[in-house]
Amino acid sequence: MTTVEERLQALENKVALLEAREAIRQLIASYGPMVDTTDTDEQSDMVATLWIEGGKYDVDQYGLHDGREKIAESFHGFHYQLVRDGVGHVMGTPYIRIEGNRATALAYSTVFRAEGDRFVVWRVAANEWNLVCVDGTWMVELRTNRLLNGSDQVKAVFGKIHGLRAKADTL
Amino acid sequence: MTTVEERLQALENKVALLEAREAIRQLIASYGPMVDTTDTDEQSDMVATLWIEGGKYDVDQYGLHDGREKIAESFHGFHYQLVRDGVGHVMGTPYIRIEGNRATALAYSTVFRAEGDRFVVWRVAANEWNLVCVDGTWMVELRTNRLLNGSDQVKAVFGKIHGLRAKADTL
Amino acid sequence: MTTVEERLQALENKVALLEAREAIRQLIASYGPMVDTTDTDEQSDMVATLWIEGGKYDVDQYGLHDGREKIAESFHGFHYQLVRDGVGHVMGTPYIRIEGNRATALAYSTVFRAEGDRFVVWRVAANEWNLVCVDGTWMVELRTNRLLNGSDQVKAVFGKIHGLRAKADTL
Repeated sequence: MTTVEERLQALENKVALLEAREAIRQLIASYGPMVDTTDTDEQSDMVATLWIEGGKYDVDQYGLHDGREKIAESFHGFHYQLVRDGVGHVMGTPYIRIEGNRATALAYSTVFRAEGDRFVVWRVAANEWNLVCVDGTWMVELRTNRLLNGSDQVKAVFGKIHGLRAKADTL
Repeated sequence: MTTVEERLQALENKVALLEAREAIRQLIASYGPMVDTTDTDEQSDMVATLWIEGGKYDVDQYGLHDGREKIAESFHGFHYQLVRDGVGHVMGTPYIRIEGNRATALAYSTVFRAEGDRFVVWRVAANEWNLVCVDGTWMVELRTNRLLNGSDQVKAVFGKIHGLRAKADTL
Repeated sequence: MTTVEERLQALENKVALLEAREAIRQLIASYGPMVDTTDTDEQSDMVATLWIEGGKYDVDQYGLHDGREKIAESFHGFHYQLVRDGVGHVMGTPYIRIEGNRATALAYSTVFRAEGDRFVVWRVAANEWNLVCVDGTWMVELRTNRLLNGSDQVKAVFGKIHGLRAKADTL
């Protein structure tokens, strides 16, 4: 026989996991609107605050940016021109696995660029978001981005789906 | 010491917010399947019921449609040909912020059109959905759509992400 | 006056539906990362386990694959070359309706292929996922895929949105 205390505890745990999943979706969904309006150094600094202070952003063809300062700098210059020419960084629905205050999300990113009266598909990539919850706020520890161009590197990212599916979310 | 009453109340509030987020995702996710099968005036009227009676749809390059009747009319003719030629209105994962019976969602929309044996990317846009919950049903009060073509208008929409991130959902 | 027992029961029902919606999103979100790293028969077998043993995959232009073995075989050969050349199967945010241990999800799928230093949009399709929960795990019974190329077949899939919107989720 399950007691009221046990039922409350079970509900609280389940709701905490549901809330964590929402927070992680929000974090990833906030990235696009932020970068697609970023054409100043101050805004680049704001984007970098999605990462923890010592976070990393490993972007295919652009290298590994280590720490918030380097991440912010990676947007300086070239990215501002992208924004002024018209660009859309569309993050896909993430597959999420939570393990306590850490989580992994696998998601597509598709970057479109305005060209004449249409858009071209510039980058389609596999992304692994390694996340950590700090004082109640989910943040990025490492984002790894690999173009879906046939490279074996894609498997190191999206191949993790099998291991993640074998686990359950845990508080 | 937290009482059973307090724990139940906290759970009920959290679950209500989670349900509201689901309902808002459903509302936005229903838009594409509806418009991509709309090639009659009766179906246009159905699409318009996603908005409140006095709702507005402000679409980049097509103007502001004020009220359900004008929104329905905006699909007459040209849109029907799009559907018959092949079109996909893909709404992205929304960033959602709830404030009582009102909510704001920021999301990408990408419109693909069939061309030969491929598809072209016709429109990639920033969208702000201003929503209101009427008698338990979330509806659109105003949808603002701005092409990601480098225009400063994008910042008025997606630039709101910073203000939304600074708030928490509230019942 | 609502009792503690009634409030607990209501919460448990609501949380069960929220968890089912998450599980269905995860199922659909896992498809892309799996197929975009599948270039061996063993991996094809893994993809097929997303379906029940007697499940079906009805893919526009490629026909109806009946049962896990046929579904796995449908990836042999041609699909492996797609992966080696670079391909992204981006599944969209699903519209979900749950009815006990069965559910229907409507979602876009967009398939991008690497071509030179860009990507082309190869397929944009309407998808209906008919799902069943077996021993606590949501699986695919039938996935129907129809290209958004102006064919009347699209209406048989995405036209279901009206009927689904008229219902509520049920346990």
